[in-house]
Amino acid sequence: MRKPWAIPGTDLYLEPTGPGVRRGLTDALREAVRTGRLAPGTRLPSSRSLAADLRLARNTVAEAYADLVAEGWLTARQGSGTRVAEHTLPPRSDRAAPHPRDPGRLPYDLTPGRPDLASFPRAEWLRAARRALASAPHEAFGYGDPRGRVELRTALAGYLSRVRGVRADPDRIVVCAGFAQGLKLLCEVLRDRAPGPPAAPDSSAVESCGPLAVESYGLDVHRNLVERAGLRTVPLPFDGLGTRTDALTGESAVLLNPAHQFPLGGALRPERRAAAVDWARRTGGLVLEDDYDGEFRYDRQPVGALQDLAPDHVAYLGTAGKALAPGLRLGWMVLPPALVQEVVDVRQDGGWSGGVLDQLTLAEFIASGAYDRHVRAARLRYRRRRDALVEAVASRAPRVRVRGIAAGLHAVLELPAGTEASVVRAAAWQGLAVHGLSRFRHPDAATEPLDALVVGFGTPPDHAWAGALEALCRVLP
Amino acid sequence: MRKPWAIPGTDLYLEPTGPGVRRGLTDALREAVRTGRLAPGTRLPSSRSLAADLRLARNTVAEAYADLVAEGWLTARQGSGTRVAEHTLPPRSDRAAPHPRDPGRLPYDLTPGRPDLASFPRAEWLRAARRALASAPHEAFGYGDPRGRVELRTALAGYLSRVRGVRADPDRIVVCAGFAQGLKLLCEVLRDRAPGPPAAPDSSAVESCGPLAVESYGLDVHRNLVERAGLRTVPLPFDGLGTRTDALTGESAVLLNPAHQFPLGGALRPERRAAAVDWARRTGGLVLEDDYDGEFRYDRQPVGALQDLAPDHVAYLGTAGKALAPGLRLGWMVLPPALVQEVVDVRQDGGWSGGVLDQLTLAEFIASGAYDRHVRAARLRYRRRRDALVEAVASRAPRVRVRGIAAGLHAVLELPAGTEASVVRAAAWQGLAVHGLSRFRHPDAATEPLDALVVGFGTPPDHAWAGALEALCRVLP
Repeated sequence: MRKPWAIPGTDLYLEPTGPGVRRGLTDALREAVRTGRLAPGTRLPSSRSLAADLRLARNTVAEAYADLVAEGWLTARQGSGTRVAEHTLPPRSDRAAPHPRDPGRLPYDLTPGRPDLASFPRAEWLRAARRALASAPHEAFGYGDPRGRVELRTALAGYLSRVRGVRADPDRIVVCAGFAQGLKLLCEVLRDRAPGPPAAPDSSAVESCGPLAVESYGLDVHRNLVERAGLRTVPLPFDGLGTRTDALTGESAVLLNPAHQFPLGGALRPERRAAAVDWARRTGGLVLEDDYDGEFRYDRQPVGALQDLAPDHVAYLGTAGKALAPGLRLGWMVLPPALVQEVVDVRQDGGWSGGVLDQLTLAEFIASGAYDRHVRAARLRYRRRRDALVEAVASRAPRVRVRGIAAGLHAVLELPAGTEASVVRAAAWQGLAVHGLSRFRHPDAATEPLDALVVGFGTPPDHAWAGALEALCRVLP
Repeated sequence: MRKPWAIPGTDLYLEPTGPGVRRGLTDALREAVRTGRLAPGTRLPSSRSLAADLRLARNTVAEAYADLVAEGWLTARQGSGTRVAEHTLPPRSDRAAPHPRDPGRLPYDLTPGRPDLASFPRAEWLRAARRALASAPHEAFGYGDPRGRVELRTALAGYLSRVRGVRADPDRIVVCAGFAQGLKLLCEVLRDRAPGPPAAPDSSAVESCGPLAVESYGLDVHRNLVERAGLRTVPLPFDGLGTRTDALTGESAVLLNPAHQFPLGGALRPERRAAAVDWARRTGGLVLEDDYDGEFRYDRQPVGALQDLAPDHVAYLGTAGKALAPGLRLGWMVLPPALVQEVVDVRQDGGWSGGVLDQLTLAEFIASGAYDRHVRAARLRYRRRRDALVEAVASRAPRVRVRGIAAGLHAVLELPAGTEASVVRAAAWQGLAVHGLSRFRHPDAATEPLDALVVGFGTPPDHAWAGALEALCRVLP
């Protein structure tokens, strides 16, 4: 997704390895030479141009070059610039391959998809766990209902109908270990519905099951999961009203974020909701409603779930990943009754719903009102962050437009065309992990690509928020 | 699996609906007539022969018949026996279909596969959860390592190498939500390894991936899961030395219970272990070692894991389902390092490892020694039950041979040929849920079927154990 930083004659992405900028650059360059990724004799860019590219002070780059010349990794000659030395150590094949880039290694993290993990209500959760453990019947510790514990399904039915307008009752709820698990289960059901031999998990043979329509922007991990389950994904175009659900035709299902498009941020307009539901009624297609952060809406009344329009054609999916923590791996699906049975049939092992103690604890947590209290407090905190972000961008980077801020834990910062990749790289050199919008774009999307950052303002702990925001502002054009 | 009780002219399985035998029989017969499963005019067996078949007193059956004659459901005429009345109510199509048989509805349960759920160490678990919650780093609440929390992998590596002789280090452990989830993941890896287009999840197209060999007896739910993932299963024959691993040829993998065959109960002999490992080394096949109850061995030293013979060719799978509770959904795999990477690649969502809090709590539970203490206490309790079972069977049903009792939470009671189905049915009428061996037999197994009961003596809570054992003895021939 992130293009490597191109050094003339080679393609090289330099990975900052620590919070100190000069030290990080020195280490990264040394590692690139040591492992052979920078071949002997390669000419490096001038310190001025590398500094501009990485949004660093020129001196920092010049000093890193000087350190490596002193160590013998680079050579510097008047007139021929800085080059990789001809006689460096042989590549050390015994070194472990570097791990894929982990945003957690940078001091600041504004990647989207997580709430502030430091705000997990540990004491409240433990209290709920104690009550749950004390009151659980013995049979709760067995294999149990494949739909998940009835206590949790009952608590969720009340909560979702009250807070999200979902037409829910415990019998049509299936607990799952997060959104991805639920999506995978539903894809398996769709695949098994296909007439003829079941589709192979490969694009060449999936025509027996209609493709799954997705929005033009979304999580690649979800697309990959759908395709691995044997369904092709096709992107729907979008316009000012949101995703063009009126373009749905022979797909078997459509995956939508009606309340808050991820990552673009808008809510699906009523006419587009109606179009999706009409399509489902007309064709028997299934609407998968990914309500991933429906609780976090700031300026207006919450946008209710689409599921209420057609409970027998919509599979509603939600999780505790944003309101509490993704690590709990607690999610839920509210399904048309016939689909509940299909889900249970497709996976007789039933092991998709996670541990019963977490389920019982969440049921307690919701029933006692702790969930509502936690969400209210979190909403206030995230709203303040959102306001600070909007204000900081307006004053420090007035050319950057902020969108998708009415709800959720992330915002989209529109950048001048062609600048996204360099801004993301520059951010890394400021110690800031942030994603460009392009990584969320469906490879077959027809709409013009946008240059933008997707800023997860919910991610940092409180103590790091101001620093993260400052680092962000420094790299904005 | 369980054959229905044949009433002349129809096939009918009567399901006891409550603990009172006469009431249960009356209700079951009435329901069969009401729903049309017993057609008007059908002649019922004599009270004497039905009583013999169900191991009930003849009076009980005669009284149930009399009740139903009085209610108008049956008619009784001298000379033509008891028949279903000609004018019964029409079938009520609005009645919900009865749920599949739930052993929990009977007062006594000796089905295998679960420990005594009442013995779950709630207070100790809560203490471990409190420590885990207090010491967890914030990042633990995020998505985290797809292999599961390092704290748990570290604790498991120490435990498994100490207790089960597994060659384990944290880097080759992958946490999963129970055995079935782990098996499913590994099947997906095997399927994706196949050359050519990936196999469809149907037997017609799986030849691109060699079949998975299983033992002749095992859990049907595991077989179904493997086949749904796109691999055919083929049963290996067995003899006095255990499963014939020397018969392995071009399979892609073999699923074995080396320490304690489920359900037959023997340990795989050293020469058969060696044959499995030789096959894996020779062909590149994978041995899946299901060590489902390795901690529970009574009379001898524990049988170590097979994995130690060839850590690079064996995927070792274990769970906390027997030692603690299946409802925790906590399992683990110790894998060849290359396979770890394949597992992580095959499922980028990583949502298979269950909630982090349970993972951290189990890590604490193991590290503090609570796991060892709990297993020791449980082993002592189950051993006493096993001894009581062996003694009761020896004195009350001396024709019945008990086998597979050196380890685990279940025993196999060999029955005279042809009696299994009737003993299982009779047990239900005594309020006892118990499984026949035939339900665990692979449909393609070549070995002669055995008539036997699989008695899960670990299942009942303490207060129900004596009653369950008494009910069992009453139905043994």
